[in-house]
Amino acid sequence: MATLNFWFEFASTYSYLSAMRISDLAARQGIAIAWHPFLLGPIFKTMGWDTSPFNIYRAKGRYMLRDLERLCSDRGLAFRLPDPFPQNGLMAARIALVGLGQGWGEDFSRAVYHAEFAEGKNIADTDLLGGLIAQQGLVADEVLAQAATPETKSRLRSNTDRAIEIGVFGAPTFETEDGELFWGDDRLEQALRWARRIPAKR
Amino acid sequence: MATLNFWFEFASTYSYLSAMRISDLAARQGIAIAWHPFLLGPIFKTMGWDTSPFNIYRAKGRYMLRDLERLCSDRGLAFRLPDPFPQNGLMAARIALVGLGQGWGEDFSRAVYHAEFAEGKNIADTDLLGGLIAQQGLVADEVLAQAATPETKSRLRSNTDRAIEIGVFGAPTFETEDGELFWGDDRLEQALRWARRIPAKR
Repeated sequence: MATLNFWFEFASTYSYLSAMRISDLAARQGIAIAWHPFLLGPIFKTMGWDTSPFNIYRAKGRYMLRDLERLCSDRGLAFRLPDPFPQNGLMAARIALVGLGQGWGEDFSRAVYHAEFAEGKNIADTDLLGGLIAQQGLVADEVLAQAATPETKSRLRSNTDRAIEIGVFGAPTFETEDGELFWGDDRLEQALRWARRIPAKR
Repeated sequence: MATLNFWFEFASTYSYLSAMRISDLAARQGIAIAWHPFLLGPIFKTMGWDTSPFNIYRAKGRYMLRDLERLCSDRGLAFRLPDPFPQNGLMAARIALVGLGQGWGEDFSRAVYHAEFAEGKNIADTDLLGGLIAQQGLVADEVLAQAATPETKSRLRSNTDRAIEIGVFGAPTFETEDGELFWGDDRLEQALRWARRIPAKR
Protein backbone atom coordinates (compact mmCIF):
# COMPACT_ATOMS: atom_id res chain seq x y z
CA MET A 1 0.00 0.00 0.00
CA ALA A 2 1.40 3.39 -0.99
CA THR A 3 1.78 5.96 1.78
CA LEU A 4 1.29 9.70 1.50
CA ASN A 5 2.87 11.88 4.19
CA PHE A 6 0.50 14.58 5.42
CA TRP A 7 2.39 17.52 6.95
CA PHE A 8 -0.02 19.69 8.91
CA GLU A 9 0.01 22.57 11.39
CA PHE A 10 -2.88 23.06 13.79
CA ALA A 11 -2.93 26.84 13.29
CA SER A 12 -3.42 26.47 9.53
CA THR A 13 -6.86 27.04 8.02
CA TYR A 14 -6.06 25.09 4.86
CA SER A 15 -4.76 22.17 6.95
CA TYR A 16 -8.23 22.10 8.52
CA LEU A 17 -9.75 21.58 5.07
CA SER A 18 -7.43 18.66 4.35
CA ALA A 19 -7.60 17.04 7.78
CA MET A 20 -11.38 16.78 7.47
CA ARG A 21 -11.31 14.89 4.16
CA ILE A 22 -7.94 13.18 3.67
CA SER A 23 -8.73 9.92 5.48
CA ASP A 24 -11.89 9.13 3.51
CA LEU A 25 -10.39 10.22 0.21
CA ALA A 26 -7.22 8.16 0.72
CA ALA A 27 -9.07 5.07 1.94
CA ARG A 28 -11.23 5.02 -1.21
CA GLN A 29 -8.03 4.99 -3.29
CA GLY A 30 -6.14 2.44 -1.20
CA ILE A 31 -3.53 4.95 -0.01
CA ALA A 32 -2.27 5.04 3.59
CA ILE A 33 -1.83 8.46 5.18
CA ALA A 34 0.99 9.16 7.64
CA TRP A 35 0.07 12.20 9.74
CA HIS A 36 2.96 14.52 10.65
CA PRO A 37 2.19 17.51 12.86
CA PHE A 38 4.83 20.23 12.70
CA LEU A 39 5.18 23.93 13.52
CA LEU A 40 5.14 26.65 10.91
CA GLY A 41 6.50 29.27 13.33
CA PRO A 42 10.19 28.37 12.93
CA ILE A 43 9.73 28.17 9.14
CA PHE A 44 8.00 31.54 8.98
CA LYS A 45 10.81 32.96 11.11
CA THR A 46 13.35 31.98 8.41
CA MET A 47 11.15 33.92 5.96
CA GLY A 48 11.28 37.00 8.21
CA TRP A 49 7.70 36.66 9.47
CA ASP A 50 6.75 36.80 13.15
CA THR A 51 3.10 35.85 12.55
CA SER A 52 0.94 34.32 9.83
CA PRO A 53 1.43 35.85 6.37
CA PHE A 54 -2.36 36.28 6.41
CA ASN A 55 -1.87 38.88 9.16
CA ILE A 56 1.13 40.54 7.51
CA TYR A 57 -0.39 40.80 4.02
CA ARG A 58 -3.91 42.07 4.67
CA ALA A 59 -5.39 41.64 1.18
CA LYS A 60 -4.18 38.03 1.24
CA GLY A 61 -5.66 37.55 4.70
CA ARG A 62 -9.05 38.94 3.66
CA TYR A 63 -8.99 36.69 0.61
CA MET A 64 -8.13 33.61 2.67
CA LEU A 65 -11.15 34.19 4.90
CA ARG A 66 -13.55 34.47 1.97
CA ASP A 67 -11.92 31.50 0.23
CA LEU A 68 -12.36 29.39 3.37
CA GLU A 69 -15.99 30.50 3.77
CA ARG A 70 -16.76 29.47 0.20
CA LEU A 71 -14.89 26.16 0.35
CA CYS A 72 -16.35 25.19 3.73
CA SER A 73 -19.82 26.07 2.51
CA ASP A 74 -19.34 23.85 -0.58
CA ARG A 75 -18.17 20.98 1.63
CA GLY A 76 -20.77 21.32 4.37
CA LEU A 77 -18.12 22.29 6.94
CA ALA A 78 -18.64 24.97 9.54
CA PHE A 79 -16.08 27.79 9.56
CA ARG A 80 -15.34 30.29 12.27
CA LEU A 81 -11.99 32.01 12.61
CA PRO A 82 -10.67 31.76 16.18
CA ASP A 83 -9.46 34.86 18.01
CA PRO A 84 -6.52 35.29 18.15
CA PHE A 85 -5.52 34.05 14.75
CA PRO A 86 -3.24 32.22 14.30
CA GLN A 87 -3.76 30.01 17.33
CA ASN A 88 -0.84 28.53 19.22
CA GLY A 89 -0.90 24.86 18.23
CA LEU A 90 2.18 23.75 20.15
CA MET A 91 0.45 21.74 22.86
CA ALA A 92 -2.08 20.24 20.45
CA ALA A 93 0.75 19.11 18.18
CA ARG A 94 2.59 17.41 21.05
CA ILE A 95 -0.58 15.60 22.13
CA ALA A 96 -1.27 14.57 18.53
CA LEU A 97 2.22 13.07 18.34
CA VAL A 98 1.49 10.99 21.43
CA GLY A 99 -1.85 9.92 20.00
CA LEU A 100 -0.48 9.04 16.57
CA GLY A 101 1.77 6.50 18.30
CA GLN A 102 -1.22 5.05 20.15
CA GLY A 103 -3.88 4.89 17.46
CA TRP A 104 -6.08 7.84 18.45
CA GLY A 105 -4.07 10.71 16.96
CA GLU A 106 -6.12 11.17 13.80
CA ASP A 107 -9.46 11.38 15.62
CA PHE A 108 -7.91 13.76 18.14
CA SER A 109 -6.48 15.96 15.37
CA ARG A 110 -9.85 16.23 13.65
CA ALA A 111 -11.42 17.09 17.01
CA VAL A 112 -8.84 19.88 17.51
CA TYR A 113 -9.53 21.29 14.06
CA HIS A 114 -13.27 21.16 14.66
CA ALA A 115 -12.97 22.99 18.00
CA GLU A 116 -10.68 25.60 16.46
CA PHE A 117 -12.22 26.32 13.06
CA ALA A 118 -15.82 25.14 13.35
CA GLU A 119 -16.36 26.45 16.89
CA GLY A 120 -13.70 29.19 16.99
CA LYS A 121 -12.24 27.92 20.27
CA ASN A 122 -8.79 28.49 21.75
CA ILE A 123 -6.74 25.32 21.19
CA ALA A 124 -3.93 26.49 23.47
CA ASP A 125 -6.31 26.03 26.40
CA THR A 126 -5.38 23.03 28.56
CA ASP A 127 -8.97 22.43 29.67
CA LEU A 128 -10.18 22.32 26.09
CA LEU A 129 -7.41 19.92 25.09
CA GLY A 130 -8.07 17.79 28.17
CA GLY A 131 -11.72 17.54 27.14
CA LEU A 132 -10.78 16.43 23.61
CA ILE A 133 -8.42 13.81 25.08
CA ALA A 134 -11.19 12.56 27.37
CA GLN A 135 -13.46 12.27 24.30
CA GLN A 136 -10.99 9.65 23.02
CA GLY A 137 -11.69 7.62 26.16
CA LEU A 138 -8.36 8.50 27.78
CA VAL A 139 -7.29 10.06 31.06
CA ALA A 140 -6.42 13.66 30.20
CA ASP A 141 -3.78 14.19 32.89
CA GLU A 142 -1.85 11.10 31.85
CA VAL A 143 -1.78 12.10 28.21
CA LEU A 144 -0.91 15.73 29.01
CA ALA A 145 2.04 14.43 31.04
CA GLN A 146 3.21 12.25 28.12
CA ALA A 147 2.86 15.25 25.80
CA ALA A 148 5.11 17.30 28.09
CA THR A 149 8.04 14.85 28.25
CA PRO A 150 11.39 15.88 26.76
CA GLU A 151 11.03 12.96 24.32
CA THR A 152 7.72 14.23 22.89
CA LYS A 153 9.05 17.80 22.68
CA SER A 154 12.09 16.54 20.85
CA ARG A 155 9.98 14.51 18.42
CA LEU A 156 7.98 17.60 17.46
CA ARG A 157 11.20 19.56 16.92
CA SER A 158 12.49 16.71 14.73
CA ASN A 159 9.27 16.79 12.70
CA THR A 160 9.69 20.50 12.06
CA ASP A 161 13.38 20.04 11.18
CA ARG A 162 12.47 17.27 8.78
CA ALA A 163 9.77 19.42 7.18
CA ILE A 164 12.31 22.19 6.56
CA GLU A 165 14.81 19.65 5.22
CA ILE A 166 12.42 18.33 2.57
CA GLY A 167 11.44 21.85 1.49
CA VAL A 168 8.12 22.46 3.28
CA PHE A 169 7.27 26.19 3.45
CA GLY A 170 3.54 26.05 4.20
CA ALA A 171 0.75 23.76 5.30
CA PRO A 172 -0.75 21.45 4.42
CA THR A 173 1.99 19.76 2.40
CA PHE A 174 1.68 16.26 0.98
CA GLU A 175 4.88 14.27 0.39
CA THR A 176 4.96 11.14 -1.72
CA GLU A 177 7.33 8.22 -1.12
CA ASP A 178 9.41 9.27 -4.14
CA GLY A 179 9.91 12.75 -2.69
CA GLU A 180 7.37 14.89 -4.55
CA LEU A 181 5.82 17.74 -2.58
CA PHE A 182 2.30 19.05 -3.12
CA TRP A 183 1.37 22.21 -1.26
CA GLY A 184 -2.12 23.21 -0.29
CA ASP A 185 -5.49 21.53 0.14
CA ASP A 186 -6.14 22.11 -3.57
CA ARG A 187 -3.27 19.75 -4.43
CA LEU A 188 -4.58 16.82 -2.36
CA GLU A 189 -6.25 15.03 -5.27
CA GLN A 190 -3.13 15.42 -7.42
CA ALA A 191 -0.92 14.12 -4.58
CA LEU A 192 -3.12 11.04 -4.18
CA ARG A 193 -3.02 10.39 -7.95
CA TRP A 194 0.77 10.67 -7.86
CA ALA A 195 1.03 8.32 -4.86
CA ARG A 196 -1.10 5.74 -6.68
CA ARG A 197 1.18 5.78 -9.72
CA ILE A 198 4.39 5.02 -7.79
CA PRO A 199 5.38 1.41 -8.55
CA ALA A 200 5.00 -0.81 -5.47
CA LYS A 201 8.27 -1.74 -3.81
CA ARG A 202 9.15 -5.44 -3.92
CA MET B 1 -23.96 36.21 -20.94
CA ALA B 2 -22.07 36.33 -17.65
CA THR B 3 -18.60 37.86 -17.73
CA LEU B 4 -15.60 36.80 -15.68
CA ASN B 5 -12.78 39.33 -15.30
CA PHE B 6 -9.36 37.74 -15.83
CA TRP B 7 -6.60 39.74 -14.12
CA PHE B 8 -3.22 38.59 -15.41
CA GLU B 9 0.43 39.64 -15.33
CA PHE B 10 2.78 38.57 -18.10
CA ALA B 11 5.62 37.74 -15.68
CA SER B 12 3.43 35.27 -13.76
CA THR B 13 3.89 31.54 -14.33
CA TYR B 14 0.43 30.66 -13.02
CA SER B 15 -1.12 33.30 -15.29
CA TYR B 16 0.47 31.38 -18.17
CA LEU B 17 -1.44 28.26 -17.10
CA SER B 18 -4.75 30.12 -17.06
CA ALA B 19 -4.19 32.15 -20.23
CA MET B 20 -3.68 28.94 -22.19
CA ARG B 21 -7.00 27.38 -21.14
CA ILE B 22 -9.43 30.06 -20.01
CA SER B 23 -10.95 30.89 -23.40
CA ASP B 24 -11.88 27.30 -24.30
CA LEU B 25 -13.11 26.52 -20.81
CA ALA B 26 -15.25 29.66 -20.60
CA ALA B 27 -16.69 29.26 -24.12
CA ARG B 28 -17.90 25.73 -23.29
CA GLN B 29 -19.77 27.16 -20.31
CA GLY B 30 -21.18 30.20 -22.05
CA ILE B 31 -19.12 32.67 -20.01
CA ALA B 32 -17.44 35.73 -21.54
CA ILE B 33 -13.91 36.51 -20.38
CA ALA B 34 -12.70 40.11 -20.03
CA TRP B 35 -8.90 40.13 -20.12
CA HIS B 36 -7.20 42.70 -17.85
CA PRO B 37 -3.41 42.92 -17.95
CA PHE B 38 -1.91 44.63 -14.90
CA LEU B 39 1.45 44.89 -13.15
CA LEU B 40 2.28 43.00 -9.98
CA GLY B 41 5.39 45.11 -9.31
CA PRO B 42 3.56 48.01 -7.61
CA ILE B 43 1.49 45.54 -5.58
CA PHE B 44 4.56 43.57 -4.49
CA LYS B 45 6.19 46.88 -3.51
CA THR B 46 3.36 47.54 -1.04
CA MET B 47 4.15 44.11 0.44
CA GLY B 48 7.81 45.07 0.84
CA TRP B 49 9.05 42.91 -2.06
CA ASP B 50 11.34 44.21 -4.81
CA THR B 51 11.12 41.04 -6.89
CA SER B 52 8.94 37.93 -7.20
CA PRO B 53 8.23 36.16 -3.89
CA PHE B 54 9.49 33.05 -5.68
CA ASN B 55 12.95 34.65 -5.68
CA ILE B 56 12.73 35.94 -2.12
CA TYR B 57 11.44 32.70 -0.58
CA ARG B 58 13.65 30.03 -2.13
CA ALA B 59 11.79 26.91 -0.97
CA LYS B 60 8.61 28.42 -2.42
CA GLY B 61 10.42 29.23 -5.66
CA ARG B 62 11.78 25.69 -6.01
CA TYR B 63 8.31 24.31 -5.34
CA MET B 64 6.69 26.59 -7.91
CA LEU B 65 9.07 25.33 -10.61
CA ARG B 66 8.30 21.69 -9.87
CA ASP B 67 4.58 22.42 -9.60
CA LEU B 68 4.64 24.11 -13.00
CA GLU B 69 6.61 21.24 -14.56
CA ARG B 70 4.06 18.73 -13.31
CA LEU B 71 1.00 20.78 -14.27
CA CYS B 72 2.35 21.64 -17.73
CA SER B 73 3.23 18.01 -18.31
CA ASP B 74 -0.33 16.95 -17.36
CA ARG B 75 -1.76 19.54 -19.76
CA GLY B 76 0.57 18.94 -22.68
CA LEU B 77 2.10 22.41 -22.33
CA ALA B 78 5.82 23.09 -22.74
CA PHE B 79 7.51 24.82 -19.79
CA ARG B 80 10.80 26.61 -19.69
CA LEU B 81 11.59 29.29 -17.14
CA PRO B 82 12.98 32.43 -18.83
CA ASP B 83 16.18 34.03 -17.59
CA PRO B 84 15.92 36.44 -15.87
CA PHE B 85 12.86 35.51 -13.88
CA PRO B 86 10.59 37.34 -13.43
CA GLN B 87 10.54 38.94 -16.86
CA ASN B 88 9.65 42.58 -17.35
CA GLY B 89 6.15 42.45 -18.84
CA LEU B 90 5.53 46.19 -19.02
CA MET B 91 5.74 46.60 -22.79
CA ALA B 92 3.85 43.37 -23.47
CA ALA B 93 1.06 44.55 -21.18
CA ARG B 94 0.76 47.89 -22.97
CA ILE B 95 0.61 46.17 -26.35
CA ALA B 96 -1.98 43.71 -25.03
CA LEU B 97 -4.13 46.64 -23.92
CA VAL B 98 -4.01 48.09 -27.44
CA GLY B 99 -4.84 44.67 -28.89
CA LEU B 100 -7.71 43.99 -26.51
CA GLY B 101 -9.38 47.13 -27.86
CA GLN B 102 -8.88 45.94 -31.43
CA GLY B 103 -9.82 42.27 -31.23
CA TRP B 104 -6.36 40.66 -31.36
CA GLY B 105 -5.29 41.05 -27.72
CA GLU B 106 -6.12 37.54 -26.56
CA ASP B 107 -4.19 35.82 -29.36
CA PHE B 108 -1.29 38.20 -28.78
CA SER B 109 -1.31 37.51 -25.03
CA ARG B 110 -1.21 33.76 -25.59
CA ALA B 111 1.67 34.25 -28.06
CA VAL B 112 3.59 36.26 -25.43
CA TYR B 113 3.06 33.56 -22.81
CA HIS B 114 4.16 30.88 -25.26
CA ALA B 115 7.35 32.76 -26.16
CA GLU B 116 8.10 33.41 -22.50
CA PHE B 117 7.25 30.14 -20.77
CA ALA B 118 7.31 27.53 -23.53
CA GLU B 119 10.39 28.92 -25.30
CA GLY B 120 12.03 30.77 -22.41
CA LYS B 121 12.39 33.98 -24.42
CA ASN B 122 12.83 37.55 -23.20
CA ILE B 123 9.47 39.33 -23.52
CA ALA B 124 10.97 42.74 -22.82
CA ASP B 125 12.71 42.52 -26.21
CA THR B 126 11.18 44.90 -28.76
CA ASP B 127 12.15 42.69 -31.71
CA LEU B 128 10.45 39.70 -30.16
CA LEU B 129 7.31 41.72 -29.41
CA GLY B 130 7.37 43.20 -32.91
CA GLY B 131 7.47 39.68 -34.34
CA LEU B 132 4.49 38.62 -32.24
CA ILE B 133 2.56 41.70 -33.39
CA ALA B 134 3.43 40.91 -37.02
CA GLN B 135 2.08 37.37 -36.47
CA GLN B 136 -1.30 39.00 -35.82
CA GLY B 137 -1.13 40.49 -39.32
CA LEU B 138 -0.33 43.98 -38.07
CA VAL B 139 2.43 46.51 -38.69
CA ALA B 140 4.71 46.23 -35.66
CA ASP B 141 5.93 49.84 -35.62
CA GLU B 142 2.41 51.24 -35.71
CA VAL B 143 1.28 49.10 -32.81
CA LEU B 144 4.45 49.78 -30.80
CA ALA B 145 3.78 53.50 -31.24
CA GLN B 146 0.18 53.09 -30.02
CA ALA B 147 1.46 51.10 -27.05
CA ALA B 148 3.81 53.94 -26.11
CA THR B 149 1.21 56.74 -26.05
CA PRO B 150 0.47 58.48 -22.75
CA GLU B 151 -3.11 57.20 -23.06
CA THR B 152 -2.06 53.54 -23.20
CA LYS B 153 0.41 54.02 -20.34
CA SER B 154 -2.29 55.64 -18.28
CA ARG B 155 -4.75 52.81 -19.02
CA LEU B 156 -2.26 50.23 -17.73
CA ARG B 157 -1.73 52.27 -14.57
CA SER B 158 -5.50 52.46 -14.11
CA ASN B 159 -5.77 48.69 -14.50
CA THR B 160 -3.18 48.17 -11.76
CA ASP B 161 -4.89 50.73 -9.52
CA ARG B 162 -8.21 49.01 -10.06
CA ALA B 163 -6.67 45.61 -9.26
CA ILE B 164 -5.34 46.95 -5.95
CA GLU B 165 -8.71 48.57 -5.23
CA ILE B 166 -10.63 45.31 -5.58
CA GLY B 167 -8.10 43.43 -3.43
CA VAL B 168 -5.88 41.66 -5.96
CA PHE B 169 -2.55 40.57 -4.42
CA GLY B 170 -1.37 37.98 -6.95
CA ALA B 171 -2.01 36.63 -10.43
CA PRO B 172 -4.02 35.22 -11.97
CA THR B 173 -7.10 36.52 -10.20
CA PHE B 174 -10.63 35.96 -11.44
CA GLU B 175 -13.31 38.48 -10.50
CA THR B 176 -17.00 37.78 -10.90
CA GLU B 177 -19.62 40.43 -11.67
CA ASP B 178 -20.85 40.27 -8.08
CA GLY B 179 -17.37 41.05 -6.75
CA GLU B 180 -16.02 37.63 -5.71
CA LEU B 181 -12.28 37.11 -6.16
CA PHE B 182 -10.70 33.76 -6.96
CA TRP B 183 -6.91 33.64 -6.84
CA GLY B 184 -4.75 31.20 -8.74
CA ASP B 185 -5.11 28.94 -11.74
CA ASP B 186 -6.45 26.23 -9.43
CA ARG B 187 -9.50 28.38 -8.70
CA LEU B 188 -10.48 28.90 -12.36
CA GLU B 189 -13.09 26.13 -12.42
CA GLN B 190 -14.64 27.40 -9.19
CA ALA B 191 -14.71 30.97 -10.54
CA LEU B 192 -16.49 29.83 -13.70
CA ARG B 193 -19.04 27.86 -11.64
CA TRP B 194 -19.66 30.96 -9.54
CA ALA B 195 -20.03 33.19 -12.62
CA ARG B 196 -22.60 30.78 -14.07
CA ARG B 197 -24.71 30.90 -10.92
CA ILE B 198 -25.09 34.69 -10.87
CA PRO B 199 -28.64 35.58 -11.94
CA ALA B 200 -28.71 37.34 -15.32
CA LYS B 201 -29.37 41.07 -15.17
CA ARG B 202 -32.64 42.20 -16.73
